[in-house]
Amino acid sequence: MAMKMKAAIFVEKGRIVLDDKPIPEIGPMDALMRVTTTTICGTDVHILKGEYPVARGLTIGHEPVGVIEKLGSSVQGFREGQRVIAGAITPSGWSNACLCGCGSQDGAGTKHGWQAIGGWKFGNTIDGCQAEYVRVPDAMANLAPIDDGVSDEQVLMCPDIMSTGFAGAETGGIAIGDTVAVFAQGPIGLCATAGAKLLGATRIIVVDTVPARLEMARRMGADEVVDFRHENPVEAIMRLTDGRGVDVAIEALGTQATFEAALRVLRPGGVLSSLGVYSGDLTIPLDAFAAGLGNKSIRSTLCPGGKERMRRMLAVISSGRVDLGGLVTHRYHLEQIEQAYDLFANQRDGVLKVAIKVS
Amino acid sequence: MAMKMKAAIFVEKGRIVLDDKPIPEIGPMDALMRVTTTTICGTDVHILKGEYPVARGLTIGHEPVGVIEKLGSSVQGFREGQRVIAGAITPSGWSNACLCGCGSQDGAGTKHGWQAIGGWKFGNTIDGCQAEYVRVPDAMANLAPIDDGVSDEQVLMCPDIMSTGFAGAETGGIAIGDTVAVFAQGPIGLCATAGAKLLGATRIIVVDTVPARLEMARRMGADEVVDFRHENPVEAIMRLTDGRGVDVAIEALGTQATFEAALRVLRPGGVLSSLGVYSGDLTIPLDAFAAGLGNKSIRSTLCPGGKERMRRMLAVISSGRVDLGGLVTHRYHLEQIEQAYDLFANQRDGVLKVAIKVS
Amino acid sequence: MAMKMKAAIFVEKGRIVLDDKPIPEIGPMDALMRVTTTTICGTDVHILKGEYPVARGLTIGHEPVGVIEKLGSSVQGFREGQRVIAGAITPSGWSNACLCGCGSQDGAGTKHGWQAIGGWKFGNTIDGCQAEYVRVPDAMANLAPIDDGVSDEQVLMCPDIMSTGFAGAETGGIAIGDTVAVFAQGPIGLCATAGAKLLGATRIIVVDTVPARLEMARRMGADEVVDFRHENPVEAIMRLTDGRGVDVAIEALGTQATFEAALRVLRPGGVLSSLGVYSGDLTIPLDAFAAGLGNKSIRSTLCPGGKERMRRMLAVISSGRVDLGGLVTHRYHLEQIEQAYDLFANQRDGVLKVAIKVS
Amino acid sequence: MAMKMKAAIFVEKGRIVLDDKPIPEIGPMDALMRVTTTTICGTDVHILKGEYPVARGLTIGHEPVGVIEKLGSSVQGFREGQRVIAGAITPSGWSNACLCGCGSQDGAGTKHGWQAIGGWKFGNTIDGCQAEYVRVPDAMANLAPIDDGVSDEQVLMCPDIMSTGFAGAETGGIAIGDTVAVFAQGPIGLCATAGAKLLGATRIIVVDTVPARLEMARRMGADEVVDFRHENPVEAIMRLTDGRGVDVAIEALGTQATFEAALRVLRPGGVLSSLGVYSGDLTIPLDAFAAGLGNKSIRSTLCPGGKERMRRMLAVISSGRVDLGGLVTHRYHLEQIEQAYDLFANQRDGVLKVAIKVS
Repeated sequence: MAMKMKAAIFVEKGRIVLDDKPIPEIGPMDALMRVTTTTICGTDVHILKGEYPVARGLTIGHEPVGVIEKLGSSVQGFREGQRVIAGAITPSGWSNACLCGCGSQDGAGTKHGWQAIGGWKFGNTIDGCQAEYVRVPDAMANLAPIDDGVSDEQVLMCPDIMSTGFAGAETGGIAIGDTVAVFAQGPIGLCATAGAKLLGATRIIVVDTVPARLEMARRMGADEVVDFRHENPVEAIMRLTDGRGVDVAIEALGTQATFEAALRVLRPGGVLSSLGVYSGDLTIPLDAFAAGLGNKSIRSTLCPGGKERMRRMLAVISSGRVDLGGLVTHRYHLEQIEQAYDLFANQRDGVLKVAIKVS
Repeated sequence: MAMKMKAAIFVEKGRIVLDDKPIPEIGPMDALMRVTTTTICGTDVHILKGEYPVARGLTIGHEPVGVIEKLGSSVQGFREGQRVIAGAITPSGWSNACLCGCGSQDGAGTKHGWQAIGGWKFGNTIDGCQAEYVRVPDAMANLAPIDDGVSDEQVLMCPDIMSTGFAGAETGGIAIGDTVAVFAQGPIGLCATAGAKLLGATRIIVVDTVPARLEMARRMGADEVVDFRHENPVEAIMRLTDGRGVDVAIEALGTQATFEAALRVLRPGGVLSSLGVYSGDLTIPLDAFAAGLGNKSIRSTLCPGGKERMRRMLAVISSGRVDLGGLVTHRYHLEQIEQAYDLFANQRDGVLKVAIKVS
Repeated sequence: MAMKMKAAIFVEKGRIVLDDKPIPEIGPMDALMRVTTTTICGTDVHILKGEYPVARGLTIGHEPVGVIEKLGSSVQGFREGQRVIAGAITPSGWSNACLCGCGSQDGAGTKHGWQAIGGWKFGNTIDGCQAEYVRVPDAMANLAPIDDGVSDEQVLMCPDIMSTGFAGAETGGIAIGDTVAVFAQGPIGLCATAGAKLLGATRIIVVDTVPARLEMARRMGADEVVDFRHENPVEAIMRLTDGRGVDVAIEALGTQATFEAALRVLRPGGVLSSLGVYSGDLTIPLDAFAAGLGNKSIRSTLCPGGKERMRRMLAVISSGRVDLGGLVTHRYHLEQIEQAYDLFANQRDGVLKVAIKVS
Repeated sequence: MAMKMKAAIFVEKGRIVLDDKPIPEIGPMDALMRVTTTTICGTDVHILKGEYPVARGLTIGHEPVGVIEKLGSSVQGFREGQRVIAGAITPSGWSNACLCGCGSQDGAGTKHGWQAIGGWKFGNTIDGCQAEYVRVPDAMANLAPIDDGVSDEQVLMCPDIMSTGFAGAETGGIAIGDTVAVFAQGPIGLCATAGAKLLGATRIIVVDTVPARLEMARRMGADEVVDFRHENPVEAIMRLTDGRGVDVAIEALGTQATFEAALRVLRPGGVLSSLGVYSGDLTIPLDAFAAGLGNKSIRSTLCPGGKERMRRMLAVISSGRVDLGGLVTHRYHLEQIEQAYDLFANQRDGVLKVAIKVS
């Protein structure tokens, strides 16, 4: 008889509830993680609102911090009781996509080894981590130990927000001395700002309107902030750059307005690094694209995962190079997760990220 | 009193005429080239039709093969009488764009050193080469000697069509063993096909409908041809790739239909390499872009120029690696250029490219 | 009671013998391959001569072509009876090295996930494939199906020689129009030549002295051949390039003489791509390295493996882009493998590669 | 009759003297810079000691900060009186090397357009900037304006030390989360440390022995310092990395000992980024190179120059991302330059860099 645990479960559009569920069983390549802390992501809100479809009864959540409870029979290199995280994206390591270095599009088990968004499993195609326990697939490719002396909350952004935001800067190909614009300063945009600074950008211009976010942006490395309610961000950025435009523009919201503005402020030859999750078709204006002759690129990136990626994110935290602690604005226990969803989904009380304490 | 020469001049929408013009004067960094052979480009037809604006009285043409008639006082490393080509794009070498390796967006003389499409000067912002003589700016960065024993017609594609088509393959990041789709097999698409083969693609699927183009495509390296009048190209390519899609899709026409199809046939993580000159806004369908989560890239490329690029294109021809001779389907003398425009603009008689013999 | 099979076993320096051995047992992630064809590599000769240490009793061989006999309990995506190859290098997919895209240095099971040469397992750290059966570890990351209609012998070079030689060209960063020198035209050097051509090099100069190899080199894409017994290869290459030197030099032998010559013929900023297995310290002459100021690079590469790499190698063969059939000069049955070693180790009778027919 | 100026002139081995010289004349592409501040480089000491040969009578120095005195007749985009720097390396922009993005090996005026170390002209092949005036060749490619409010001393490292040190980090391909070792913490090594931090390295281990340098290293971003007089640096670094080794090792001295140690501490697949100027042949130990099978790379880099590079270096300073002010430990007037050479060449009084005030 399987043991029971608490888990946040998608029931139907508008309803994610905390309920009892059996503790997951694990296969030879898996690990069972006892979750100690997790969080809620903007994507979870899309699920809640029925905008991103998942199966009824699925446990939600893809940002686990915890302790190894049990290891599959074939898993080596880890020990039970070890504090670890796993990424939001859990590549198998052995699909063709993974072997091409693109684990986010992992097609493990598909005919050709590529699957759009296939690397995102937790809380999407398998049970997630807003629960007391979570099964981590392909554990040897995905578990990353946490350094002693580093708290759960310090590393809570590593699995998704930080890896995604930094990837926006990396995919943009930022070089020393670049000028970078980041559109939207929610948690991912703030991490993109921190990532741009970490890669040597010397001028970072961010766009948002919430004062607390703009203030946090400055702490993350923004040199200039543009409040889009006070001025047109394209005009503001072109003015700030004296008509030159930026080398790299990072889209971190997922709307036509920000996508288009990002393309418009790019200098010829620049890169639009797209992180947003869009909800409709996008338009590339002819002039902003120089009719196809401006050597502009548009690159989309899904959060990179896997234990080596997580190791690097953890190293950034442990080294003190970037401090993302300030992103957690609210704290709840798993028992209160419905309340946490309510706050987060409605973006009340200046919430940036919530920490969900599990055990 | 300046000497006179014949030149094809843009008069107004619908009228490019052959007329007398003074032989260009040159500055210290320039060269005067006596043109021996040139050609007409699809872009010239856009100019003719008034779809791409240039100044009245401008000499058209950007694909010069010729002989150095005279060198500016500061030019070293070349000699008068030498057979040379210059690229369609003539980077200065010293602008910020050039120093970033992006000479196509050369902003020589602008405040920040970047100018959209700024590297394209001949027949766009300065007099072009459908004339007996042409002034080559920044000659030391732009003149490339032709090997003995290689004919004008053999190298006539180097300045633009070949450099552009190959760049489509290069920008796509084609790797050994890739599957590549090329949309449209006009002269640039055919060169993209040749370029994809030259870079190690092992399966090249091309889309067009003109039988002669599809046949030429096979000679350039196409493994499969799709006639879009007989079947939906997206369905055909997905069927041919057994549902996987392609690693790189090259758009070589400049329409929403081909752009969108190129995006749809990409596997996750794939690259859409865009060469077309678009005439309207583009739409990125949400599903084809995996809502921004599919790690897809869209990269636009303008023809690379400069003498090193031309040297490499000439080396491809001299080595026999690629034979583009078959692309010239019709031959005219400069005196007949209006007739050549009429044929080429109306795509009559199966024309691919025309050679214009000048002297 | 385990079933018996025949296997070529390292006994001691100078002795590799065919003997009985139990058919390997497999774990949940493994596959058992019935070997149909294999070959002998130069590295195997190093083992035979005691120059590269392996355990007594180890089955030698790392180039397997065969049929899946049995799949481990956790393996999905393959079926018994399927014709497959595995690479000489069999990355786990889940080590840190693999997740960094460097499976050749796979450190699966080590503390940090990196192990020098760790991806090479067959006939090195685990039993190899000069046997009737071989256990393939991490089968889902390593098995690559062979297309119908393609013979064992056609794909026999894929696991090692071809993947290595091509990697020499890839690591060199060869670009369209490059001039490339390849030092030594043994099987790997010949594949490097083929790879250089496949990537767009327009002038390939090869160095060897055996007439049959130089002739084969021309078939693989060499434009010029230098016989080092007749002339100093550095002088010859500098003469052939008119004093310029080459963009990329590939070392495919593993001696100080070829390493040094490769460095000397490089133009400033060029890349020495090193494939050889060296047996002593190397010297970088001060002048050839421009005292460290010449922007020269030296990059060493171990054969890439994994199923995606193998899929690409197989695609090159199936597409007919490169025909390596001619490299097999001698054929033996497994029963005669000691004789095959004798011929190959002594490089008699113009041998390039031998095919060992197993079943 | 030419006007006279003061200049530091190489007379013979052991003698660089301040003497009168005519103010340089300039050609159409040149600029005349009135030098306001300059410095002495380790390379200048090599010249002084006769270890690096230059012509008798040559003005030494390649790190100019100053004001445009006069512009050549063809120079546009600058104005007389403007505060500017030029790089130690002054690429022409139009040679084949420059058009390949490798201006440090500029072969302007040579047959093939490549010349080893050819981009280094000031104080090497043309008169340098330890003088009241210096002629800047190819001015449009090389002059970079200084922001108002930034002092000469703040930007004095940009032309050489900073561009070189940062390039060591860039060429190493440092990624977020990398562990990096830097061998020697002279001015270039210190800038390499700062560059490694700027690119996202999360653990930087530096090796030197001078306490003031190790202390400065910590200010530049070093996380650990190893004093090679107290412990073997290879052992120390392997201990600090728990046996893993580093992702990137930067050699910033130019000796066999540091080169070899850098190779030894590299993990498999790592990059040795070499900045040092060597004075003898180098040895690559067989084991440190894994016999050529460890996927290790050795990449040498000469200081990048040109106005776009300088613009980026200046942006790093103006943005406050890195503060190199502390590197200037001593200050002299041009009149005292012989005294400055004496101090600097003998590394007395804890000197890191000297500022030479000119006007």
